[in-house]
Amino acid sequence: MSLLEAVPNFSEGRRSEVIGRLTAAADVPGVRLLDVHSDPDHNRTVLTLAGEAEPLSDALFHTIAVAVAEIDLRHHNGVHPRIGAADVVPFVPVLDTPMGDAVAAAHALANRVASELRLPVYLYDAAARRPEYIRLENIRRGGFETLRDAIATRPPDLGPAQVHPSAGAVVIGARQPLIAYNIYLDTDDLAVGRAIARRVRASSGGLPAVKALALLIPRRGQVQISMNLTNFHETSIPTVFEVVREEAAARGTRIVASEFVGLVPLDALLNVVNAALAGDLTLQSVLDLRLLDGG
Amino acid sequence: MSLLEAVPNFSEGRRSEVIGRLTAAADVPGVRLLDVHSDPDHNRTVLTLAGEAEPLSDALFHTIAVAVAEIDLRHHNGVHPRIGAADVVPFVPVLDTPMGDAVAAAHALANRVASELRLPVYLYDAAARRPEYIRLENIRRGGFETLRDAIATRPPDLGPAQVHPSAGAVVIGARQPLIAYNIYLDTDDLAVGRAIARRVRASSGGLPAVKALALLIPRRGQVQISMNLTNFHETSIPTVFEVVREEAAARGTRIVASEFVGLVPLDALLNVVNAALAGDLTLQSVLDLRLLDGG
Repeated sequence: MSLLEAVPNFSEGRRSEVIGRLTAAADVPGVRLLDVHSDPDHNRTVLTLAGEAEPLSDALFHTIAVAVAEIDLRHHNGVHPRIGAADVVPFVPVLDTPMGDAVAAAHALANRVASELRLPVYLYDAAARRPEYIRLENIRRGGFETLRDAIATRPPDLGPAQVHPSAGAVVIGARQPLIAYNIYLDTDDLAVGRAIARRVRASSGGLPAVKALALLIPRRGQVQISMNLTNFHETSIPTVFEVVREEAAARGTRIVASEFVGLVPLDALLNVVNAALAGDLTLQSVLDLRLLDGG
Repeated sequence: MSLLEAVPNFSEGRRSEVIGRLTAAADVPGVRLLDVHSDPDHNRTVLTLAGEAEPLSDALFHTIAVAVAEIDLRHHNGVHPRIGAADVVPFVPVLDTPMGDAVAAAHALANRVASELRLPVYLYDAAARRPEYIRLENIRRGGFETLRDAIATRPPDLGPAQVHPSAGAVVIGARQPLIAYNIYLDTDDLAVGRAIARRVRASSGGLPAVKALALLIPRRGQVQISMNLTNFHETSIPTVFEVVREEAAARGTRIVASEFVGLVPLDALLNVVNAALAGDLTLQSVLDLRLLDGG
């Protein structure tokens, strides 16, 4: 079994009948819809799907086709940057699936979308074929309105050399699972939180593959360091925790709690177990997986 | 889905054709044989099976019937205490199955074994109906040879009031999963290890539901604290680790590594994660389970 997750993002977060048509198009045997998240401010919907590569790619193709038919970017507004009706479609390897399977699925879907839907397709992250397209923000900078005029300077990997008049273009790729992780501090001093976030986040020279910002959570009267770990193989959860703990101590405060938002890969949790216990536990030793996996 | 594990122990660890018949009898649709462990010194075989209550109980009934037909305790010897050809048959709740389901399965199997195989049946641990039978050692003390003469003083819960002439009696029950956990210390001083094991084990006033002994591991030149955690809800892995860490520090040594023998329930590992991260993660947040569980 080679199970993949896909997290397609569509530029529609308000018209419920269109959102309903997108989820209906994903209803393919062998594919499970784990989550639907629509944001009216972003005017954007994110589906979380899981399945083996073939049925999952079928489901994604159908949803992209619905997005092309139903969403017109010429009349779309929202605060989130986007270049397509179906904007970005990442495959994520889960369980013991290798990244190569996610990349292969991304390339196959990209070919089909380019040829059958006549959309310009960009390949990003682990599926990128050009180094400048590894980072999504390089492809999406300026959004649909910029790309429409400047596509010659940012040529797609596949498909036509012109943006689709109403549906724009699409970014397809493969990436590591993302972990949304928040740490609460025993302080309401946002300046302390901001200083710690700066020390942690990759973009200011902190930990690789970590995005971080500080927020004051009024309900708790505490500062939260809100993080995305974009590659837990590169920077693990226990490393992040330890660095925040040290930086907090250096500023006279301490961690009071931490929490994950959404689902966490077990592999990332085993890093925590092994750091805490000086252990070397692997997925093969986890009873629940062995029972469920048929292995 | 209400998944159970069963770990039946049979008094045969040498004759491979009998062991083969036992495993063949467990081959019931819906039941998976996860492990077979035969020990010639103990003259004993332990199967690990998993399935839903009905097929699992069917498989256990068939294996017990094979044991009754094939094993004669009058000609059996081995270093491990035993009162039956099929000696002890524990059901273990796994994943999110409640203990009550394991107890109900134990009671149903006990009734069938008592009436159809005419064996005296004792109910133990969470399935016990008499407080003096909660602990397995109270039922099994002195083995088959003692029970044969003294069964009137140790009456079975179900079935005939006499031991079966060749197959003895059987103990059926329900218990928490057992975790086999070893901690290595940065010392080769076995006296230090023994002192720590005494502080940790329940029987000398240490931690509830923990068995512990100290061993010198020549290959590593290190002392190992070898433990069984018989109820990780009562004493968790991080509690055990912390107590060993403190006791080691008090004696001038430290933990260098730790390891699990066999499979570990994920719930017990989440205790470690939550202790390390000041977290409150539950099984529902673990991606891999959600993907495999169909949930």
